[in-house]
Amino acid sequence: MNKTDRKPQEGLITRKPFPGSEKVYVKGKLFPIEVPMRKINLVDTVTMQDGKPVHTPNAPVYVYDTSGAYSDPSAEIDLHKGLKDIRTPWIERRGDAERLSGMTSEYGQARLNDKSLDALRFEHIRKPLRAKDGHQLSQMYYARQGIITEEMEYVAIRENQNAEQCGIKTRITPEFVREEIAAGRAVLPANINHVECEPMIIGRNFLTKINTNIGNSATSSGIEEEVEKAVWSCRWGGDTLMDLSTGAHIHETREWIIRNCPVPVGTVPIYQALEKVNGKAEDLTWEIFRDTLIEQCEQGVDYFTIHAGVLLKYIPMAKKRLTGIVSRGGSIMASWCQHHNQENFIYTHFDEICELVARYDTALSLGDGLRPGSIFDANDEAQFGELETIGALAQRAWEHNVQVFIEGPGHVPMHKIKENMDKQLRDCKEAPFYTLGPLVTDIAPGYDHITSAIGASLIGWYGTAMLCYVTPKEHLGLPEKEDVRVGIITYKIAAHAADLAKGHPGAQIRDDAMSKARYEFRWKDQFNLALDPDRAFEYFHQREGANEDGSKFCTMCGPNFCAMRISHDLGKGKCMDEYSK
Amino acid sequence: MNKTDRKPQEGLITRKPFPGSEKVYVKGKLFPIEVPMRKINLVDTVTMQDGKPVHTPNAPVYVYDTSGAYSDPSAEIDLHKGLKDIRTPWIERRGDAERLSGMTSEYGQARLNDKSLDALRFEHIRKPLRAKDGHQLSQMYYARQGIITEEMEYVAIRENQNAEQCGIKTRITPEFVREEIAAGRAVLPANINHVECEPMIIGRNFLTKINTNIGNSATSSGIEEEVEKAVWSCRWGGDTLMDLSTGAHIHETREWIIRNCPVPVGTVPIYQALEKVNGKAEDLTWEIFRDTLIEQCEQGVDYFTIHAGVLLKYIPMAKKRLTGIVSRGGSIMASWCQHHNQENFIYTHFDEICELVARYDTALSLGDGLRPGSIFDANDEAQFGELETIGALAQRAWEHNVQVFIEGPGHVPMHKIKENMDKQLRDCKEAPFYTLGPLVTDIAPGYDHITSAIGASLIGWYGTAMLCYVTPKEHLGLPEKEDVRVGIITYKIAAHAADLAKGHPGAQIRDDAMSKARYEFRWKDQFNLALDPDRAFEYFHQREGANEDGSKFCTMCGPNFCAMRISHDLGKGKCMDEYSK
Repeated sequence: MNKTDRKPQEGLITRKPFPGSEKVYVKGKLFPIEVPMRKINLVDTVTMQDGKPVHTPNAPVYVYDTSGAYSDPSAEIDLHKGLKDIRTPWIERRGDAERLSGMTSEYGQARLNDKSLDALRFEHIRKPLRAKDGHQLSQMYYARQGIITEEMEYVAIRENQNAEQCGIKTRITPEFVREEIAAGRAVLPANINHVECEPMIIGRNFLTKINTNIGNSATSSGIEEEVEKAVWSCRWGGDTLMDLSTGAHIHETREWIIRNCPVPVGTVPIYQALEKVNGKAEDLTWEIFRDTLIEQCEQGVDYFTIHAGVLLKYIPMAKKRLTGIVSRGGSIMASWCQHHNQENFIYTHFDEICELVARYDTALSLGDGLRPGSIFDANDEAQFGELETIGALAQRAWEHNVQVFIEGPGHVPMHKIKENMDKQLRDCKEAPFYTLGPLVTDIAPGYDHITSAIGASLIGWYGTAMLCYVTPKEHLGLPEKEDVRVGIITYKIAAHAADLAKGHPGAQIRDDAMSKARYEFRWKDQFNLALDPDRAFEYFHQREGANEDGSKFCTMCGPNFCAMRISHDLGKGKCMDEYSK
Repeated sequence: MNKTDRKPQEGLITRKPFPGSEKVYVKGKLFPIEVPMRKINLVDTVTMQDGKPVHTPNAPVYVYDTSGAYSDPSAEIDLHKGLKDIRTPWIERRGDAERLSGMTSEYGQARLNDKSLDALRFEHIRKPLRAKDGHQLSQMYYARQGIITEEMEYVAIRENQNAEQCGIKTRITPEFVREEIAAGRAVLPANINHVECEPMIIGRNFLTKINTNIGNSATSSGIEEEVEKAVWSCRWGGDTLMDLSTGAHIHETREWIIRNCPVPVGTVPIYQALEKVNGKAEDLTWEIFRDTLIEQCEQGVDYFTIHAGVLLKYIPMAKKRLTGIVSRGGSIMASWCQHHNQENFIYTHFDEICELVARYDTALSLGDGLRPGSIFDANDEAQFGELETIGALAQRAWEHNVQVFIEGPGHVPMHKIKENMDKQLRDCKEAPFYTLGPLVTDIAPGYDHITSAIGASLIGWYGTAMLCYVTPKEHLGLPEKEDVRVGIITYKIAAHAADLAKGHPGAQIRDDAMSKARYEFRWKDQFNLALDPDRAFEYFHQREGANEDGSKFCTMCGPNFCAMRISHDLGKGKCMDEYSK
């Protein structure tokens, strides 16, 4: 057993509430649901009138909150029991699911019966839910039936928070959510076995989302560390979480993560399948893959990345490239196809996969196994050929009421990004796009969170629904906690920049609140409104003499050169700097 | 005297050569000039043929090198004497300048005669050069006369390095450089008193440049630290350097910086003028400002930011804003105008300023004193009104053969960036644009190098010639050395991404070399080709078991999951990973 493979300890988990913030819950109107939000309370603006200070309150800012119960000081957290089950009553009310007597995957059963794993297994495993025979239960199915679910109202409230508080009318209603899901333009990933999950939605008419990747590799971290990384990722703003573990105890690690994760969890099942055949791609079979899908569906994985579009005919195209195939899943499937000279079994069994995942409402993320790994390879025939294949598969998935989104590149220079988005919308009939960056240059290892955030902002503006983060360690190593934080904040910037550029209703409220606080020298409000309050606070206080209480300039420019102070003196809104004189 | 106000020590200066690199000098064809470049040598690609390793050499990559003599191990550096004078012979050959008997500014003379400053004064001050009466000597003047200067050939060689080595034909010739300068589309900042400066060019048909800001404030660092920051900035890729010092000993600090700086130095003279009147904007006069311009021209400042476009009529517009005036220079001038109810003296004396700076070939950077300081204020009437005024002034400057570029914002959401570029090109008749970011959101203090790099990449792609860097400390404090490094690398990314998107000839060579090295597991080449080799090396080696010699996978994915290894095994170019088995 790996030195770190032990059950997680409570003390390891980050639970510090956000400064100046309250966790609030907004109740549903259609359903008895409670949607968590972070309310940032601001101090008053103080102006002088007739020599007396006049206080004008600043409205609080409501922030979309992915951090789960961990940031709620009143919540009881027990990692060994997992987060509170919020969705089982909703699923039971709908009556389309049944509780199985136990796991149905061979591998799942074997792991459960392996006594040597008792010491690290999550104990409170629920028996899995699955659609009753002849029933359907995906969010897409309900949406197409004209049914609004609890999950749909939940995301409608969640998306609207800031705007509604400020009296801004938006088109995002539960009915709008339903329509978008029914049309395939949005995905609400919500495996019925991930009952701890706080529903969220991925679609270009909603807030731009970000995904984070965590997961150990054969040479690195263990369960305890990964659970904390998951909580940490949610804290900073990760909207979904992919567990890309490839080391020992993948099954057990995943159980711990899902049970303690308030956001949808995605995986790449071929990674685990490959471990089951000791890393030999040619030994993979459809049966092993299928059993892995069942195993993970019953654990509660909300979406699977599957590389169904890596076809035999594309392999020669990839061989012409500067950097070949850089997707792990893509290279595994290409290797299998070439070895057996057979078509990709994920492609040939695609309908069976859809039938299988539909019973759990696991969404499919159609992986771009042939994404370009360099500027040189961007937008080539291998990449675009695969995209066309994937587009056709998306429509097949919809026939099964399976929710589906599409993965995209990769490495693409700025002037070639729009073509990606346009082609994706066309070929994939508006199924949500989910891209990795793209990185707009290859020459900055150590800073690829930045090279990729530039591309991510652009493609998000053009219409990508979810951005997969990249950390500073990309191309060099696995991210540590600090890298995860930097990667997330960088991608929150990209996503928010895209929302502003798309004119998303209410997106600018936080910017305006920040700028007003900045102009009025309300330093604490600036920190609290920041994407990373701790970092802003830390940098500010690194300077000698920094004073956040009523300081009418900062150490950046000194008193004589503070443009904002001088600007105030020009006459508009004599505010607290006058007051503090 | 400030504790840090003492003459710089040699040991403080970073002189480490870049790993795997040589400093080479390319000779001119028209003139006896030597243009420095960094040549990155790569190792061979090793493939197996008939069981034997076959070595195929990889061509070296030539990189535009701003680091000056400091990165040349054979160069003698003496901070007390300054860098080698390379330009005096060129200027003397042209015969349009004369050496004065001493400084002509009152302030410069007073500082020189102040015995109390002896202890920290740069000793080897040359007597200043100035255009002879009736002569002109700006690069624009020569260009319009059809004369190619040493400086023009120098930048032509410099811009072409990579492309020419790879046999890529570009349009960048000394004649093309001359034409661009003559048309006002490019600026070659080269004050005749900055004879240590390695010429460079700013224009949208050349490589996108970046500027860095350094400088102490009343509450912070001193001479020694600022000189090292200047050298450090050049090392990482700063193309020009603005000394924004506002504290004690501005005059002396600037002398040390210019004498030891291999890139053009810019300033905002109004900062020093304000110090001369003890920080009271209303006490500023044209005479004090004029004397400051002369003082700085004779020290060798290559360009001045002057806020000539802040007119009385724009002040009421700025008062409607969320964040008022956020440019320091802008707020100072607005304050002066309002106090005296008089038009901006920089505007009313603009022709006199042009006549003055033309005698030294100090370029003018027309500052955007009314740039927006928040997303809310972007593209408003104050900003665009000022831009129109500045555009008209640019044409006035050209009448005096003064080189001129235009400063731009600021805070602008992505969808409003292009309008800035289009309007600038139109109103300013294609004079080069030089922007600060723009920041595409206000909500990420601590990460504003990233919020701004997104905007900078976009506006660079659209045609901005130079990007002013922003460091992680923006809005919070003054940058330390590490912030300078991060800010520069971030902006090198933005500039390079723009060059790729514009299809700049040869720009992609470095990306391709990096990607090839990546695909072939040539780790050392990857580090050496990186914008920040040290950071890439450091991250790679943080992982246990990291091995850069022939490792056929990295710790990121482990051996079973290395897409590139698997991709190799598919058949293309069995390379060193096979060899090392």
